Amino acid sequence: MPKWRARTLNSSRMDRSAEFKKWKAQCLSKADLSRKGSVDEDVIELVQLLNAREQFFTTSSCAGRILLLDGGINGLGVQKQNCCWLLVTHIPCVKDDMMVALKKANGDAVFKFEPFVLHVQCRQLQDAQMLAVRSTHGLEVPLSHKGKLMVTEEYIEFLLNIANQKMEENKKRIERFYNCLQLALERETITYSHTKIKEKNNPFCTHKKKRNPEKLRGKCIPEENDKEPENDDDSDPGINVAIFPKDY
Amino acid sequence: MPKWRARTLNSSRMDRSAEFKKWKAQCLSKADLSRKGSVDEDVIELVQLLNAREQFFTTSSCAGRILLLDGGINGLGVQKQNCCWLLVTHIPCVKDDMMVALKKANGDAVFKFEPFVLHVQCRQLQDAQMLAVRSTHGLEVPLSHKGKLMVTEEYIEFLLNIANQKMEENKKRIERFYNCLQLALERETITYSHTKIKEKNNPFCTHKKKRNPEKLRGKCIPEENDKEPENDDDSDPGINVAIFPKDY
Repeated sequence: MPKWRARTLNSSRMDRSAEFKKWKAQCLSKADLSRKGSVDEDVIELVQLLNAREQFFTTSSCAGRILLLDGGINGLGVQKQNCCWLLVTHIPCVKDDMMVALKKANGDAVFKFEPFVLHVQCRQLQDAQMLAVRSTHGLEVPLSHKGKLMVTEEYIEFLLNIANQKMEENKKRIERFYNCLQLALERETITYSHTKIKEKNNPFCTHKKKRNPEKLRGKCIPEENDKEPENDDDSDPGINVAIFPKDY
Repeated sequence: MPKWRARTLNSSRMDRSAEFKKWKAQCLSKADLSRKGSVDEDVIELVQLLNAREQFFTTSSCAGRILLLDGGINGLGVQKQNCCWLLVTHIPCVKDDMMVALKKANGDAVFKFEPFVLHVQCRQLQDAQMLAVRSTHGLEVPLSHKGKLMVTEEYIEFLLNIANQKMEENKKRIERFYNCLQLALERETITYSHTKIKEKNNPFCTHKKKRNPEKLRGKCIPEENDKEPENDDDSDPGINVAIFPKDY
């Protein structure tokens, strides 16, 4: 390789590194533009852990929440543009609060439980082994139509019971994920080298379990056997890790 | 760069390419181990389009479906290990079929609408600009507890109406995604070079809309304003693209 080529490569690498540093500083110094205006308590430590590393910074996060949205009446789910937030809570919800919120609905109200989600910017594609994190134990339940409640109070109580349990489980998963991440960062298994992180050495444990290795290599398999089990196995934080390139 | 080093790099690149080719042939020749045993009709063309390219192959797909699962009674959702499939359909579902299926439930039955999902293996990380595709307009509705139906027949009809409409919308999204993908492949904007696909030139249009560019760069923003709108804008197939590295 001619010398000028090596110089160009090195300097371009440095440029990118400096650019990322600047971009990170810019992003982290800006005001939090979310409705809430601050990071959810249950993920503060996790967000800090990531932002303390020079190769990462977080751009959005939610610890998990129960939502009641009043949407359009097209039956096609809630469109953000036309929807109204009747209730949002990051802690367990009691029936009376939900009933009060439901009385305000005049469109098609939808109850949601949204688990923990985290978006992370990475300096290099290789770092993106952990760029976005999304858990998979949500709920989305249409409750009313044109303002009329379609279920009983007993059902609301039943549903809240499930959602509140999912919230507890979600909290455990955040903790497990934090512990796995900390371990990985400590051991420096996540580097910005081009080294491939081998699955067996990867404390994230966030891949789907290979109960059926044949299946994973199989041909165009519909997802019927491909659901994440929701268990308490400590070796599996029960969270999917996905990578979104910067341009998406 | 010494000559032997260049040779090593080239030969390692060729090895990887040959390895991928072999792996792809192996996977595509194996039996489909899913319950259904074949690719869903609505995604056959899409799967073929991808498998025709040497740098990709699909490992699993589902066109979208309505499901009724009978799970454990722990309220924490359906665990794959302990659950029973009471009904699954890839076409719109009528109330009578659902009521018959519900009568068989003796645990906590959960109704689901799962939209289109596709997993793709890529030869190189750079190709993975489109490695996994997942739509975001699902439903997850607990319906019965310990075999007792917690909602009315009227609610089931209301819910099926919504699910069937989502299925229609889902079909449109698959078509839009197919068209975008075809265009991208024709234009060869997806290459296995290291060229970054610029967002403005990217016909996938699968990124979240940047209505608020400030927000995207903002600090640790909870997802409250971050929901995918479910609209019919033809420039947006309404499908998220995520990348899962091979090891996850």
